[in-house]
Amino acid sequence: MRDRCSDLGERELVRRITGILEIWERDDCAMVEDGDKYLVWTTDILHRRADFPGIATGWQIGWMAVAVNLSDVAAMGAVPIGLLIAAGMPPETEVTFVEEIFRGMKDCAGSYATGVLGGDLDSIEELTLSGTALGWVERDLILRRRGARPGDLLCTTGTLGSAGSGLRVALEAEGRGERAVDDPDLRALMRRLLEPSPRLEEGRALALSGAVTSMMDNSDGLALSLFDLSEAGGVGFLVQEERIPIDPLVSKVAEDGDDAIDLALYSGGDFELVFTVRQNRIDEVSRACDLTVIGTVLEERKVLMEAAGARRRLEPRGYEHMRPPGSAV
Amino acid sequence: MRDRCSDLGERELVRRITGILEIWERDDCAMVEDGDKYLVWTTDILHRRADFPGIATGWQIGWMAVAVNLSDVAAMGAVPIGLLIAAGMPPETEVTFVEEIFRGMKDCAGSYATGVLGGDLDSIEELTLSGTALGWVERDLILRRRGARPGDLLCTTGTLGSAGSGLRVALEAEGRGERAVDDPDLRALMRRLLEPSPRLEEGRALALSGAVTSMMDNSDGLALSLFDLSEAGGVGFLVQEERIPIDPLVSKVAEDGDDAIDLALYSGGDFELVFTVRQNRIDEVSRACDLTVIGTVLEERKVLMEAAGARRRLEPRGYEHMRPPGSAV
Repeated sequence: MRDRCSDLGERELVRRITGILEIWERDDCAMVEDGDKYLVWTTDILHRRADFPGIATGWQIGWMAVAVNLSDVAAMGAVPIGLLIAAGMPPETEVTFVEEIFRGMKDCAGSYATGVLGGDLDSIEELTLSGTALGWVERDLILRRRGARPGDLLCTTGTLGSAGSGLRVALEAEGRGERAVDDPDLRALMRRLLEPSPRLEEGRALALSGAVTSMMDNSDGLALSLFDLSEAGGVGFLVQEERIPIDPLVSKVAEDGDDAIDLALYSGGDFELVFTVRQNRIDEVSRACDLTVIGTVLEERKVLMEAAGARRRLEPRGYEHMRPPGSAV
Repeated sequence: MRDRCSDLGERELVRRITGILEIWERDDCAMVEDGDKYLVWTTDILHRRADFPGIATGWQIGWMAVAVNLSDVAAMGAVPIGLLIAAGMPPETEVTFVEEIFRGMKDCAGSYATGVLGGDLDSIEELTLSGTALGWVERDLILRRRGARPGDLLCTTGTLGSAGSGLRVALEAEGRGERAVDDPDLRALMRRLLEPSPRLEEGRALALSGAVTSMMDNSDGLALSLFDLSEAGGVGFLVQEERIPIDPLVSKVAEDGDDAIDLALYSGGDFELVFTVRQNRIDEVSRACDLTVIGTVLEERKVLMEAAGARRRLEPRGYEHMRPPGSAV
C-alpha cells in the first residue's frame, strides 16, 4: 500500500519535498542576496478549520494572517518591506466579514510600519489565507537557525503558554456555544492566541546587537523550536525548567504546574523569539531587548530539561500538521 | 439582507478590498523600490476544484502553480528571482502524488532559470497551492498596465484560444471517464492548458526594447485584459477580429468561427502577454519578440471589435471567481 501524507506527518513530508526542491537548509525565511543585504521572504497558509477558532472575529483572522508572516521576518532580524495576501473565500461569505478581515490585516501591518501591497482573491469552500512577507537585513547581521555554539546562553522573549491556554479558553467557550468570553484574564489569554504580536522590534534589536548566534520564532511551541535549532546548528540544549517564563495568567487555565509547563513547551502560537547569545555579551543584549535566559547550549545534539536537579530528555512534540493532535513525531 | 461575496463578484470585491488596503493601482505584480531597480512580487492561489481539471497529473499541477506566478513576473518585464509555495494537502493524499507535484514545480521553475526557495505545508481538505514569485527589473524599464497612448499598436504574443479549447477537451474526456486523451492535436490543446509557458523571455525582450508602453498577461482572457488595460491607462482599444492569432488547433474543438473567436476572447489560461507599442518602433520590436499586431489604442475609453467593416463593443466577460461561469461582470 502506498504511503499517504497522514502516515508520514508534516516534518517527514517536508523533508521529502525540500529534498526534491534541493533546499538544504531551512530557516524561518528563504534568503536572497541583494547587494550588501539579504532579502528575506516567507509564506504561511492558514485556513478556517485548523487555524481560526470559531470564536475569532474577522478582524482577528486578518490580524493573525499578517502577524504569523511578520513573525518569520522578525526571526531573521529583518525589517519588513511588505506583504501579499492570497485569499480563498467561500462565495457565501458576507462582504462585511471579508472587509473586517482585510481591516485586521491592514491594522496589523500598519502597527509594524508596513502594509499589504497586493494579493489574489479566489472562491474556495474553506476560508484560506495565504500570506507572504518580504523583508531585508544587512548581510552581516542576519540571524539564522544555525550558529549557536556550546556555552552560549539560550533565551526567549516574552512569556510562554499564553496561546495554548487561550486555545483552551476559546474551545471551551465554543463548546458552551458562547460567542465571547467575559472573564478579563481569560479574554486576555485568548487575545494572545488570536492577536499575536510579532517580535519585530526585538528581533531587530537582537540582530543589531551582533551578539546573538542563532534565532527562530517558536510558532510550533518551544520544544519543537529547540529541536529545529538543534538540527540546524548541530548542537543541543539544556533548559532550566524553573526559568521558563510562563505567562502568569496560564495558572487560570492549567490543571497544575506540570500542565502549565506542558502548555509552555508543547503548544504553538506564542510567536516569541528563541535565540542564543554569547555568554560574555548577555548583559548588553539584555539591555537591548527584554529577554529571559532559560538554559545553555550543549555540544551534544540532545534537548534536555533540568528540574529540581534531575535531567530528562524533552520530546519533539508540538503543533504539527498532517497528524492527529498529540501524536509523537 | 447583507451582501455576500457571490452577489458582488470578484472584481467588485477586489475593488472594496484594495480600497481598505489603500492600493490605488493594480498591476500583475506589486512593486517595491530597491535602489536603481524595482522588486516585483506576485501571489496566485490555485485549488483543486476550480483550477486543476481531474485529468491533470500531479506534475502538471505543480507546473501550473509555478507557471501562473512566473507569467505575472513576465508581464512586468522582470527577471524572476525565485518562488515560495504554500501548499495545503488533504492528509489522505498519496505521498508519491505530492512528490510529483513538487517535481513539476521544480521543472517549471528550472526551465526559466529560477527555483522554489521555500514554502509552507498545511493539511487542508481541498488541495490548495498558493505560489509567490519575486523578480526584479530596472526602474526605467518596468512595464505596467498603464502607459498606452492613443495611436499605439495593440499586440499579443503567441496564439489564443488554446487553453479554453484544452479545457473543453479535458472536461469532455473526464465526462467520458477517461484518464488520457489519444488524439495528438487534442492532447496538445490540453497541454497548453495544463502546462502553460510563461512568456519571460518575451517580456524581458519587450522591456529591453524601450518601445513598449503598457503590458499585462491575459490570464483571464483577452477581453478582460483589454478592459483592465483600458481602466489602468484611461484609453480604449480597437481590435481587428481577423488579426487575432487563433491557435490553428482551436478549429478541432470550436463549433464554428464565432465560437473560435469567443474561445480566444473570453477563456482564460493562455498566459500570453498583451501589450502596446509605439507605432514608429513596431518593426524593431517585432524583431525582438514574436508578436501579432491585433489593433490600435483609442483615446476614448471603450473596447471595440472590428469585423468585416462593422464595429461592435466587446463585453467585459471572461474568467472570474465568485461568479457562476458565464455570468456577465
